[in-house]
Amino acid sequence: MASDALEELIESLKLLPGVGRKTAQRMAFALLEGERLAAQRLARGLQGACERITRCQRCRTYCEGELCAICRNPQRSAETLCVVESPADLHALEQATGYSGRYFVLHGRLSPLDGVGPAELGLPQLADLLAEFPVSEVVVATNPTVEGEATAHFVAEIANAGGAQVTRLAHGIPVGGELEYVDRQTLAHAFGGRLKL
Amino acid sequence: MASDALEELIESLKLLPGVGRKTAQRMAFALLEGERLAAQRLARGLQGACERITRCQRCRTYCEGELCAICRNPQRSAETLCVVESPADLHALEQATGYSGRYFVLHGRLSPLDGVGPAELGLPQLADLLAEFPVSEVVVATNPTVEGEATAHFVAEIANAGGAQVTRLAHGIPVGGELEYVDRQTLAHAFGGRLKL
Repeated sequence: MASDALEELIESLKLLPGVGRKTAQRMAFALLEGERLAAQRLARGLQGACERITRCQRCRTYCEGELCAICRNPQRSAETLCVVESPADLHALEQATGYSGRYFVLHGRLSPLDGVGPAELGLPQLADLLAEFPVSEVVVATNPTVEGEATAHFVAEIANAGGAQVTRLAHGIPVGGELEYVDRQTLAHAFGGRLKL
Repeated sequence: MASDALEELIESLKLLPGVGRKTAQRMAFALLEGERLAAQRLARGLQGACERITRCQRCRTYCEGELCAICRNPQRSAETLCVVESPADLHALEQATGYSGRYFVLHGRLSPLDGVGPAELGLPQLADLLAEFPVSEVVVATNPTVEGEATAHFVAEIANAGGAQVTRLAHGIPVGGELEYVDRQTLAHAFGGRLKL
């Protein structure tokens, strides 16, 4: 590549998830076309996000300032706490459900081999939070993977120690899914958890 | 979205080609995870590219400084000039072919309805260039679209006026392609331009 700055731009675009060399090249050339307002806006957006976005001191999701909008909102019930793996999961739940309680973000899942233990997930902080602000229900919304399940058990222990009822998101057939193509475990869960019509 | 800086980051990532809301969200959350070195590097890469990358004063491709590496290189033949629509096309030709001449980048194609005329494509500059540095061959490598063909004719006229021989990239069956699936026009071109074995 002729220009160092262009090469560096392509290399840095490759840091985005799902972007390889070809896509990064296409993005770089598109950003350099014309007045470059998009490139400047993206640079400012990245800079602003790096400088201003921190973690909420109570629930650990991304926010600006000490507490996030959900923790600051007096309309949100302080009776339920939903524990998620990532801010993206929080966002997905906010958009899809009418959940009106609060959250706690782990920023990962238990993975001892990668050096991710209870401390990295803020579980001591979760215990403190439940001691300071007791809730009646803790919804454990970790992902249904092996590591997510292990994390869920850990979180459930802490929640039980805090005297809260622990619930888990329901497993079952995805809406619009077909029985024939659903995997065996999911089908077993769905059958076991059948509900009265 | 809870945070303005996060929302602004997502909106600015959406300016990248082929990136919609969902992908931008995924990118933003990935950039904010951990130490944010990738986000900072990308911000610096964008800033550096915007500040340092200009157009080569001779061939109009992207470069730092007055002339690009190809125009500065005395090893590149000054006998042939290849006219392309974009720096990305130049890059593709550089990577795929052993072409050792120079380039001229139009940064677009003739499109009167969008206000892109000869002046926007630097065609007066091309005429000056050919007058100042006459070449023996001009390779017109615009895309084989209607607008690309119109542009090619325009470029050919200028090149002819400059006394150069004008050539065009060959049309034909893509390597690895199957006759059965090649479109009619391409097949007609390939048949008409058949070569002795």
